Amino acid sequence: MNGRIEVRTEEREQLLDITRAVTDEVKKSGVRDGVLYLWSVHTTCGITVNEGADPDVARDIVAVLRRLVPRDGDYRHAEGNSDSHLKTLVTGPGQTLLIEAGALVLGTWQKVFLAEWDGPRSRSIAYRILPA
Amino acid sequence: MNGRIEVRTEEREQLLDITRAVTDEVKKSGVRDGVLYLWSVHTTCGITVNEGADPDVARDIVAVLRRLVPRDGDYRHAEGNSDSHLKTLVTGPGQTLLIEAGALVLGTWQKVFLAEWDGPRSRSIAYRILPA
Amino acid sequence: MNGRIEVRTEEREQLLDITRAVTDEVKKSGVRDGVLYLWSVHTTCGITVNEGADPDVARDIVAVLRRLVPRDGDYRHAEGNSDSHLKTLVTGPGQTLLIEAGALVLGTWQKVFLAEWDGPRSRSIAYRILPA
Repeated sequence: MNGRIEVRTEEREQLLDITRAVTDEVKKSGVRDGVLYLWSVHTTCGITVNEGADPDVARDIVAVLRRLVPRDGDYRHAEGNSDSHLKTLVTGPGQTLLIEAGALVLGTWQKVFLAEWDGPRSRSIAYRILPA
Repeated sequence: MNGRIEVRTEEREQLLDITRAVTDEVKKSGVRDGVLYLWSVHTTCGITVNEGADPDVARDIVAVLRRLVPRDGDYRHAEGNSDSHLKTLVTGPGQTLLIEAGALVLGTWQKVFLAEWDGPRSRSIAYRILPA
Repeated sequence: MNGRIEVRTEEREQLLDITRAVTDEVKKSGVRDGVLYLWSVHTTCGITVNEGADPDVARDIVAVLRRLVPRDGDYRHAEGNSDSHLKTLVTGPGQTLLIEAGALVLGTWQKVFLAEWDGPRSRSIAYRILPA
């Protein structure tokens, strides 16, 4: 089973919790045991998994990356978003998640995030679910 | 085949070589050709693959990340481990490894590491092996 | 289907576009829907996907990583390439790509890169294609 998850981000830089949308696709697939692949088809946002209980974690992650890779710098790329491309490399463009007993294998605090580095934008995440 | 690999880390920040434990699961599975998925169910440690021959490489990696993302900073997250969450994003929460002829596809110097960023702790790594 | 993609890099640090070589393997496999796994068997280069239309993006990514992790530093590893190992951890050693209708699922601007951090060298990328 494969498809697209469409989301809308709200900030230039933001970790957007997409766990529910991803979980819904797993349920729809009916797959009990297998693997879920997530892939951002963009070059200025990525997919990651991190703590979602305290929103300050996402805020701190964004703040550290802003400090390390400022928006303005000695960049040649004329579009003014070289920092977004670098942050996307750091985050990674996709993630592979495990499915057991019809549910994603996630720890107590883990949430799936679209890591937006050049928003706000409409974003499309391709996915495929393979049964074991 | 799926399961858990349980390990105990010894330092706050450390690359812990888990290659043998991972290799054992591949052997137990009997899978000759396929794919192995590793997934940390935590938000302050990740999985990576890097040089394991000279322990100074792991030491240098930890030292650079400590310099770039210090433990103390202008963080809001009250638990005092925002740096650990950021280092986990950089490392990534999981890895996908290839299996050929009953063995992991690893280069001469490659070892599989649990990257601990907020230890020492007991850590659980979920895995699944899919035959080709 | 599995195999190796062999490439030669030209700089010490470089994002080398390998999209055509990867696409060729997908075509040869005849797989219409599935997953492609790419794996670098080295510890000083990685695989990433980012913008390939404007070469200044790759140039800026390399420049930022050079600034954050200089070649010379307070490193213990005697081979003088600790920075390369750290950049490899940041990039990640492999990527998982999706295949739909016989083609890689890539956005308009996405290209697959070998991220060379200690070249120039001959590099070998292992791959496996699993049909859905």
